[in-house]
Amino acid sequence: MMKFRILAVLALVGFSAVSQVDADKAAVIKSIYTEALGEQQGYQWLKYMCEVIGPRPSGSEAANEAARWAKVAMLQAGADTAWLQEVEVPKWYRGPEWSKAYAGGEPISLPTTALGGSVPTPKEGVRAEVVEVGSFEELEALGREGVEGKIVFYNTYMDHSLISTFNAYGGAVKYRWAGAMEAGKYGAVATVLRSVTLLRDDLPHTGAMSYGDSEVKIPSAAISWQAADMLDHLLGKGQKVELELFLDCGVQGTATNYNVIADFKGTDKADEIMLVGGHIDSWDLGQGAQDDGAGCAHAMQVPNLLKQVGYAHHRTIRVVLWANEEFGLDGAKEYANWARMNNVHHWVALESDGGAGAPRGFGVGADDDRVAQVQAMKPYFVPYGLHEFAKGGGGADLSPLRGHDDFFVGFRPDSQRYFDFHHSARDRIDAIHPRSLEMGSASIAALFYLLDQF
Amino acid sequence: MMKFRILAVLALVGFSAVSQVDADKAAVIKSIYTEALGEQQGYQWLKYMCEVIGPRPSGSEAANEAARWAKVAMLQAGADTAWLQEVEVPKWYRGPEWSKAYAGGEPISLPTTALGGSVPTPKEGVRAEVVEVGSFEELEALGREGVEGKIVFYNTYMDHSLISTFNAYGGAVKYRWAGAMEAGKYGAVATVLRSVTLLRDDLPHTGAMSYGDSEVKIPSAAISWQAADMLDHLLGKGQKVELELFLDCGVQGTATNYNVIADFKGTDKADEIMLVGGHIDSWDLGQGAQDDGAGCAHAMQVPNLLKQVGYAHHRTIRVVLWANEEFGLDGAKEYANWARMNNVHHWVALESDGGAGAPRGFGVGADDDRVAQVQAMKPYFVPYGLHEFAKGGGGADLSPLRGHDDFFVGFRPDSQRYFDFHHSARDRIDAIHPRSLEMGSASIAALFYLLDQF
Repeated sequence: MMKFRILAVLALVGFSAVSQVDADKAAVIKSIYTEALGEQQGYQWLKYMCEVIGPRPSGSEAANEAARWAKVAMLQAGADTAWLQEVEVPKWYRGPEWSKAYAGGEPISLPTTALGGSVPTPKEGVRAEVVEVGSFEELEALGREGVEGKIVFYNTYMDHSLISTFNAYGGAVKYRWAGAMEAGKYGAVATVLRSVTLLRDDLPHTGAMSYGDSEVKIPSAAISWQAADMLDHLLGKGQKVELELFLDCGVQGTATNYNVIADFKGTDKADEIMLVGGHIDSWDLGQGAQDDGAGCAHAMQVPNLLKQVGYAHHRTIRVVLWANEEFGLDGAKEYANWARMNNVHHWVALESDGGAGAPRGFGVGADDDRVAQVQAMKPYFVPYGLHEFAKGGGGADLSPLRGHDDFFVGFRPDSQRYFDFHHSARDRIDAIHPRSLEMGSASIAALFYLLDQF
Repeated sequence: MMKFRILAVLALVGFSAVSQVDADKAAVIKSIYTEALGEQQGYQWLKYMCEVIGPRPSGSEAANEAARWAKVAMLQAGADTAWLQEVEVPKWYRGPEWSKAYAGGEPISLPTTALGGSVPTPKEGVRAEVVEVGSFEELEALGREGVEGKIVFYNTYMDHSLISTFNAYGGAVKYRWAGAMEAGKYGAVATVLRSVTLLRDDLPHTGAMSYGDSEVKIPSAAISWQAADMLDHLLGKGQKVELELFLDCGVQGTATNYNVIADFKGTDKADEIMLVGGHIDSWDLGQGAQDDGAGCAHAMQVPNLLKQVGYAHHRTIRVVLWANEEFGLDGAKEYANWARMNNVHHWVALESDGGAGAPRGFGVGADDDRVAQVQAMKPYFVPYGLHEFAKGGGGADLSPLRGHDDFFVGFRPDSQRYFDFHHSARDRIDAIHPRSLEMGSASIAALFYLLDQF
């Protein structure tokens, strides 16, 4: 325990703790970061996914093009096997979409996008008075009398005071997910939502919504932050405001997409799988650069970086790029089912779906001993700015493996910018900072290197 | 020591250490961050400086407009006094500038900018064969025989493997600063330099250079990263490459700029000054958003945030926005001289000149006891992502105070993106992420709050 304490004190007071760690291992880790920051192969891959292939929504041919491309890229990077696993997914369609506010003067166009899963409006659109609510409680208080025949405007916010923007997202996304379902109960004819973002900009942000078991299905859209401010301002004057909404969108049956599964065989523990993955699908606005092209690039870089620095891993490193995370987790479920049926045991499984911000650390979902083992690796990472080694980790695409496997890791990049881009037209390659992305690639590869020593 | 160790272990293993700290103080700090992230007053100020006033180079009227505006803004924010201190500065002029490479085919235009302080070329420009060097040692090895009558191309790099980009900058900037002086010794007619940046883009980055005591003064410019790649590629084919360079620039005598000095009086220790500052000048490309409008916004926010959360500080908080850091530190020298003559003692002096990245911590330049005091405050900052509390700190504008005062702090934001923008046309308001900027404002205000308790 004493050594642990000394290390901790060193870390606390800001001195490099590396002198306390194994120098050979620290040198390998340094070479991993240097390779990543120099060649920037992950960024090159991501640039191709974004600029050449583009957005990869559920059911799209672009998602399949990306999968075929990634399979080849992994074979070229030295994968022993790489294959495409069929996944049945809903086929999402988005056509023209717009809204206009009427408040006495000329109609005001609002940047608008259908939420994923929304039904379309009638061909002539829907026009109705707007009623604003700030919570489900306010909706309930208005009741059918206040809501029937109207368009409900969810003027709801991510909590800017939360430092983890993922926590702030978690508190606000319920209005996107269930807003139409709840408003439909009171006879609303449509809903619009302040985009779930922290950037006070003029782009709408989409994302999945659900009608649950409800037979009432009303159109549901997001409007930009600035449009929401304007609508709130107009309504605040006490005047009657009408909104005209047109959405041409919907789920058009199902289609086949693919999980990409690439194995880089270990030398002497090849049956033990170290899984690293991101999801290859994206929303249809933007290019899915941060969400989750960055996670794919991270994952693809892990075996590549270890190879480039000459490290022969004991265990098999498996890169999995999941199909359709955004619109139902279909790829993750399919992969997990297949893994269970084939008795695949994942010695560790790491997901990157938090974007390409500079790395801050890892969350570890495992028993306390395993968590402590990973936390003891922290001194290797402090020189690279990773200080957060928290208990609890792994993301949505790992969730179907729970109960079968028992060691999950979530990569934690800086979260401050992520929701600026998230699910919007801004999520393009120029949203990616190459060095920060590759700091992430290197951090995950370094963690896998250290874990492989056990 | 035991308590210190326990805190450290808690921080190491990723648990919140806040439960170990004073809950009332932690609550004040939380309110500071919430205010900063909500109102974003620092971002509003910075937006005005960038969009309405624009670039503020040494000797410019824009620098004076910014100073007059900041004085009024500080009075409006509750400053007890605010005044402008005259500073004599060199007046920098930049006119048209361009270069073209000739390598057999059509001439190739290279994005080019004069370094700050360069002499102009003759009116007809200068055209000569290019010779490439990767270091001063290579220049010396070529000698007069290899260099005379030629244009020296410094194909020198920031070291991408260094995690602190400020360290990487420190290693590369000597070629910008002294490249013309050294090449002039061997009879070169001009120099061009790979821009001192880590972003592999197509914009040139300027910055100060010097001829030292040399009477030989040859024109000196930076070209973009991609132009440097192209030039290196052309030269690598073994063919003769000529460069034609035109620079209309130079120092046109001196002008008067101003330091802004705004005091927010303390309640019972008003004679003890807590200085927080950034520099109000910028280079002439871009808008000086990251360098150092961000530092000005941070500094201006410190007394404002403490006022907004209702904290009456014991000591006087002084905001100083220094004139002309970039081109000679004139403002900092003038302020320090004035402070010495008037026996002003700065109880603490903090500088923010590292941009608007998400905060990582502070560097503390003080005796070991003081350093330990600040490091003991770390648990208050861990929930906000600040983990680096290093010995050694304070920046260029604080350097003239050394020897007189003894407690300096440098704010340390994440450095990964800073040199993407630095001294280039990219350093505009859209280079600023509002939340990350305000996390910095709040972090500095929180540190001042805690320090004021001593």
